[in-house]
Formats: sequence, structure tokens, C-alpha cells
Amino acid sequence: MSEPVVILMTPQMGENIGAAARVMANFGLTDLRIVAPRDGWPNPRAAAMAAGALADVVTARAFENLEDAVSDVGMLVAATARKRELTTPVWSLSQTVAAMGASAGDDAPPAVLFGPEASGLSNDAIARCDAIVSYPVNTDFPSLNLAQAVAVFAFSWAAGGGDAPPVSVDAPPPAAKGDLIALQEHLIDALDRAGFFFPESKADAMKRGVRALLARPGFTLPEVRTLRGAIKALEEGPRPAALRRKAQKAQDDPER
Amino acid sequence: MSEPVVILMTPQMGENIGAAARVMANFGLTDLRIVAPRDGWPNPRAAAMAAGALADVVTARAFENLEDAVSDVGMLVAATARKRELTTPVWSLSQTVAAMGASAGDDAPPAVLFGPEASGLSNDAIARCDAIVSYPVNTDFPSLNLAQAVAVFAFSWAAGGGDAPPVSVDAPPPAAKGDLIALQEHLIDALDRAGFFFPESKADAMKRGVRALLARPGFTLPEVRTLRGAIKALEEGPRPAALRRKAQKAQDDPER
Repeated sequence: MSEPVVILMTPQMGENIGAAARVMANFGLTDLRIVAPRDGWPNPRAAAMAAGALADVVTARAFENLEDAVSDVGMLVAATARKRELTTPVWSLSQTVAAMGASAGDDAPPAVLFGPEASGLSNDAIARCDAIVSYPVNTDFPSLNLAQAVAVFAFSWAAGGGDAPPVSVDAPPPAAKGDLIALQEHLIDALDRAGFFFPESKADAMKRGVRALLARPGFTLPEVRTLRGAIKALEEGPRPAALRRKAQKAQDDPER
Repeated sequence: MSEPVVILMTPQMGENIGAAARVMANFGLTDLRIVAPRDGWPNPRAAAMAAGALADVVTARAFENLEDAVSDVGMLVAATARKRELTTPVWSLSQTVAAMGASAGDDAPPAVLFGPEASGLSNDAIARCDAIVSYPVNTDFPSLNLAQAVAVFAFSWAAGGGDAPPVSVDAPPPAAKGDLIALQEHLIDALDRAGFFFPESKADAMKRGVRALLARPGFTLPEVRTLRGAIKALEEGPRPAALRRKAQKAQDDPER
């Protein structure tokens, strides 16, 4: 079974990295990845706080950016406060552990991503994630120490998710089916005009595949609108202003 | 309802006391008692690590001995490895939290007792306790940092200790993050070329929205490939054969 990878995004203090490694080892996690640590890697303060975990149990590797750190990862979950401006679903710890356990037969391991001490995870990083895992914190004092946040996750994994009740997941409602169908047919018509459904003998099956692919996520209405805008933009190509600039450039360059 | 008291037995490092106070505040615990701390009390290192918890949320009091610290306590549970030479019952965290919750109507609050960093709880101290609470640790690396041990207890209390039903996750496995990122950046580059991210002041937020939208569904690798093919087709426009037919039609219809 694939155990979760722990990823620390641009951590500042070596002590926190070491404490995170120690508690990972306590609860049987062994794959630690560190993205752009402030003080470089390896870090003697981390080794001191790890109480032997970095020498004996946990494999820690540093990466230059998040994309490299997650390239072989399957499910990616962000440990952060929920963001109202993103549609990323919010899971409890027990839901997260259950989902990771169910995905553990996959080739790609699941991973949990923790932000830096001072600022938390950026929206850019969260947008890479399948879900946010939310802790049942005191809203008047919500900010956990980084290594404590890792401790709670690692314990929850070791306990099998049984120690956490589900929090209500108030995912935004999916768009009405009519809006979804309009999106499906918009994309299919555009792809048809582009000659995408080829050869003709496979066209019907390909169209079904495109419809199913768009139906599965439960896109919200704003997402449907964004996707329809994207299809229109791709089909029409650059905006008139850009076109005008292009035309001007062609006039200025008589060899074209 | 009476929340659990946290008692630290002869702790050595102020940093650990402060980190324990911080994570207590994170999970809504406010009564910290410290028995004969090595470096006295108050302790500036504890205050620094508490990130405000000792000033604002948690009430910390020092006692000379365990008996004084527990004089008003009802149920007392020792957080320590099990001791074969004692008959004290051993509970899981969820059993402990359930028992404490059931006892919370009593006048006397429940309490959990943590031993000092180096040596753990003495048999004398454990003998004062109603039960031992055992953590699901890696037996090859069982020794938790003191503040991490408090974190796991405080989280378990906040989470209610109940058994949560697992969510059913029988979806096909998502593509590896590297494949998903390639899809996200492919679409963003194509939309950028088409002038989609406009006005420029909103471009970064729009790009995050597109990334999050593609991350949420957990698309499979075949779905990722289909979507990349669709983006390419839309951007490149009609295939040569279709173009030829269109060109032919334009010739046949000189008014166009």
C-alpha cells in the first residue's frame, strides 16, 4: 500500500523540518519532500530536531519547485484554511485519509502539501491540489505550528481516519444539466468544425467520450461559463486588437 | 461541558511548554498545569513558542508536585507507552476522548498527563492514573516530542473521537500530477495566445481559476490526453482536408 508523501512548501525553519520528520517516523511515514527550503538542504538544525528520524527512517529530498516535487504524485491534498475564492473541495481529515487509502493501490502515491510558516499556501499552489484538508481548529486561534500540522495528519493516517468525524463539505452545487449540456454541445460543435472527430467511423464514440468527460466533474455554473469562454477564445483565436497588431506588422514587413 | 486539563510532568524545555500551549489553543483547550518545570515558571522561551497562546487563550499554572496539580481533577489518564508491570488499563485515543466526554458532566474535569522529555512518566505517576492512553505509533520509532504528543491528544479531543464513516471512493485513478500540470499549462498557454486573460490586472486570478477548475475533477490520464488533443484541435483550427473543402466552397461562391 502506498503511504502518503509529505511535502513542505518553502519552509523557513530547519527546526520545523526536523520536527516534522520525527513525527512522520513516529507514525510510519517515510517520504518527505521539501520545496525550496529557505536555508538550503541538508540543514543541521533539522537533523538536530529529528532525533534520528532523518538518519534512520525518513528519506528527505529537496526540490526547486512544486511541479518537480509532485510529478509522480497521484492525489494531492493541501493542508490549509479553506479559500473562498477557489472551488477546491474541502475534506475532513478522515475523508482525506479514507480517500488516500482508497487511492493507495494506484501507481502514484497520494501526497499532502503544507505551506510555509508565515504565510500559508499560495492560491497558485492550492490550484494544483485535488482538495483542501481542513482541521477542526478553534477559529479564534487557528494557526498551527508547521510540525504540529504534520503531526495531526500523520497521526490521522496511522489511526486510519477513525479518530476524526466528518466536517460538512459544502462544495458549490453543480450547474443545472441544461447549462452542462450547452457546454458539451458547444465543445463538440467547435471540435467538429476543427475536424477533431476523425476518422468518421469513430466520431460518435469520441463525442460520447467528450460528453462524459465534461459531465463527471460536476462543474459549477461559473466553471461552465469559464469553459465556454475558453472554447470560444480558442476557436476564434487572438482578439481583434491582437489581430490588428498582427496585420500592422505584416504591412510593416513587406516580405511577408 | 468540562474540557480536559493538560498536565506536563517536570518538563525540561520551555520551548516544548510553549508549543504545547499553542496547540492546546488551536484545538480549544485552555487549562495547562505544569508540575515542577526544570527552568521555573514563567519561562520566556515558552512564551516565545506559544505565539500568543499563553497571553490570550491558555491559563498556565505551575505546581510543586503531581498531587497538588490533580487535586480537583476527576478522571486522570497518562499519555505514555504501556507498562507491562502495571495493571492500569490501556485505552485508545478515541476510547479516552469518549470516556472524558462521558465524564464531563461531573464537577471535576478530566485530565491527561504527559511525562518529561527524556524519561517519560514514572511508574509512581502512572499509578495515580485511571488509564493509559496509547498512540498508534511505529514501534521502531515510538518516542514523540512532548508538544507533538499534546497536539495529537488536543486534536483527538477537538475531533470528538467518534468513528467517522469512510467516504466511498471508487472513481478511476487520477492522472499523475505531472500529466495534470502539463494539461493545465497547455490550456493556459493556448488561452494566453488567444488573448483570453483580459484585462491584464485579472490575468493571474483567471489563470489560478483555470488551474483549479482542471485540478478538481481528478481527470484520468486518458481524459487528460483527450483534453489536450481538443485544445490543440481548437487552437489549430480546421484540418487541411476541411480547409480545402472550405476553400473550394469559397471559390464556388464568389460573393463571399
